[in-house]
Amino acid sequence: MKSFRLKYEDTELYFGCNSVKNLKKYMKGMEHAIIATGSSSARKSGALEDVENIIKECGVKFEVFDKIRPNPTVEIADKLAEMILEKGSDCIIAIGGGSVIDTAKVSSIIALSGGRAGDYLRGKRGKRYLPLFVVNLTHGTGSEVDRYAVLTEGRNKVGISARYPNASFDDPRYLMSLPERQAIYTSVDAFFHAYEAVTGKFTNPFIETLSIECARLLRENLPRNQDLETKYNLLYASMIAGISLDMGPAHIVHAIEHALSGMNHDLPHGCGLAIIGARSIYWIHRYAKNSQRIMEALTGKRIESASEAEKSFKEFLEKVGFDERLSDYGFGRNDFKEVENMVFGELRYFFRRIGFNFEREMLRDILENSL
Amino acid sequence: MKSFRLKYEDTELYFGCNSVKNLKKYMKGMEHAIIATGSSSARKSGALEDVENIIKECGVKFEVFDKIRPNPTVEIADKLAEMILEKGSDCIIAIGGGSVIDTAKVSSIIALSGGRAGDYLRGKRGKRYLPLFVVNLTHGTGSEVDRYAVLTEGRNKVGISARYPNASFDDPRYLMSLPERQAIYTSVDAFFHAYEAVTGKFTNPFIETLSIECARLLRENLPRNQDLETKYNLLYASMIAGISLDMGPAHIVHAIEHALSGMNHDLPHGCGLAIIGARSIYWIHRYAKNSQRIMEALTGKRIESASEAEKSFKEFLEKVGFDERLSDYGFGRNDFKEVENMVFGELRYFFRRIGFNFEREMLRDILENSL
Repeated sequence: MKSFRLKYEDTELYFGCNSVKNLKKYMKGMEHAIIATGSSSARKSGALEDVENIIKECGVKFEVFDKIRPNPTVEIADKLAEMILEKGSDCIIAIGGGSVIDTAKVSSIIALSGGRAGDYLRGKRGKRYLPLFVVNLTHGTGSEVDRYAVLTEGRNKVGISARYPNASFDDPRYLMSLPERQAIYTSVDAFFHAYEAVTGKFTNPFIETLSIECARLLRENLPRNQDLETKYNLLYASMIAGISLDMGPAHIVHAIEHALSGMNHDLPHGCGLAIIGARSIYWIHRYAKNSQRIMEALTGKRIESASEAEKSFKEFLEKVGFDERLSDYGFGRNDFKEVENMVFGELRYFFRRIGFNFEREMLRDILENSL
Repeated sequence: MKSFRLKYEDTELYFGCNSVKNLKKYMKGMEHAIIATGSSSARKSGALEDVENIIKECGVKFEVFDKIRPNPTVEIADKLAEMILEKGSDCIIAIGGGSVIDTAKVSSIIALSGGRAGDYLRGKRGKRYLPLFVVNLTHGTGSEVDRYAVLTEGRNKVGISARYPNASFDDPRYLMSLPERQAIYTSVDAFFHAYEAVTGKFTNPFIETLSIECARLLRENLPRNQDLETKYNLLYASMIAGISLDMGPAHIVHAIEHALSGMNHDLPHGCGLAIIGARSIYWIHRYAKNSQRIMEALTGKRIESASEAEKSFKEFLEKVGFDERLSDYGFGRNDFKEVENMVFGELRYFFRRIGFNFEREMLRDILENSL
């Protein structure tokens, strides 16, 4: 398992076992760091301890902010920003998955560009931001190499173009303690980054290269004993899907999922994508020619039609042991109208990213088939 | 055919038809540019005229330096640097293939860091360099996205880690006028960037992803009518092989070719690689596990042994219409000792990049089989 460094956009990514040791070179001149994280995975994985040891060795003082939860809110981003200002921190070290990384991105902007998180969700742009270092703890987010951040304000879940991390560390060792369901959810998240990037209007050959490879790696590594090499491969698949996503943003599937987990914050993002994925693929497949290529890479089978694409994704979910439905999260037909209003309202901007007309009947059909 | 932008390391790459229009945004504040190029392809392709029009529109004065030839020398890099200093130019715009781009890289360093080209070949490092913009005219070099420059001093051909261009423009339209033999040579060059990067000691999953894709695209696009779409695909294949090469440098095949074209400057680089390629692959294949994957991608066939890998590369050359031999360039057995002295002398540093012992008998066997 090779360790390597990749500079993509503004991010220096260090990939491989013990890659976090490279954090040291960024600590020069730093006096105080905020470590932003969630409730447990940073500790359980050993990442927090490793980071603390490194920055202590560099003489950097620090404070841990461990209040970030899945589907993070604007309030928590504001709190983190306040703590940064209060402590006069020089940088943020985010240790976690997408929720932690995205929150830290927004807080790092607030800290130097002012305002509140909600302002940025509504269009404010921040040119200056605190240095941000990321220790990624899931093989799904892609946020360690992309510019995006997704936060929730009330029932609205909004994705914005925020900033790239200065440096990120993808270490498969930290993923060994990821709970099995999280491993499935985040793998599905990585797949939909690859799938939506390559089927969207902004696809290009580089996205094709990376997205197809991501799908092929998911086929080869899911489900398998989640040994270190599997984790390495899944983490790599997720990382390149992050680059795909950065170049060609997500569209329909993410839009619908944002509406759903905006309405029910207990629905994990990757789980929501998995639930609505099969029928979404059915519709996208009819219009986007790359859908065939990526579905064939995911399944290793020839895919001749939208129905076959849908079926093969269902088989993939079955293979990895996923069987949840919208109704498991309390959704019923009564909620469809609200989902529709959000998708065709606030989230309408996602439609600019596809080359076909997404219609209300398609959405209803997807929800109906996901109950 | 999509146009897209990719930021890799320090280079902003613009890919696609008419991508050179993006040069405009880099001309702000520039007063004088040196356009560095070769004798004819910049004019014939239309690239020179396009660049002149763009920079005239931006009010930038310019001078054309069109003296760069294949296998460029340190003397020409020094001349270009002198012209830059004499004119007080603010930037270089390189229009050409690897020879032009590499020369411009070194001259851009000399201009701000002093010294002569030969100093840099012998280890001098330059921290400061003039902005460099690249309009790439071949689908082989990779130099538009990598840090390397290769120059010749006497009979020594030396590759150095020089710098990345600030911005590069890969426009398939400019490749339509590339002579057929050049198209073959440069495609083979791209292949060996991919092949050596992925079979070398510094390979990693990202190199694998890009190198395998490069080989697959070469299989799909060579030989075909050299229409614009084919050129687009070949140019893309070459560009990603350039990133592969940047992350995992070339080794044996390039080392031997450097010795050969150092001795005979009339031997085009890609041609030299093609001549010695099959038998080099035979030896590398025995030790490097990725050789099988990339040869299978290039041929679309199952490759079970080193002999099959060698044979399949010969078939590939036959398919693209390449049939030259070392003897066509005046090489005979009498020259083997000198090649050996160079490869195992000045060029020995290439050996650090492979995971096996490259022995003198292997080199002699490669040369013997390439006569």
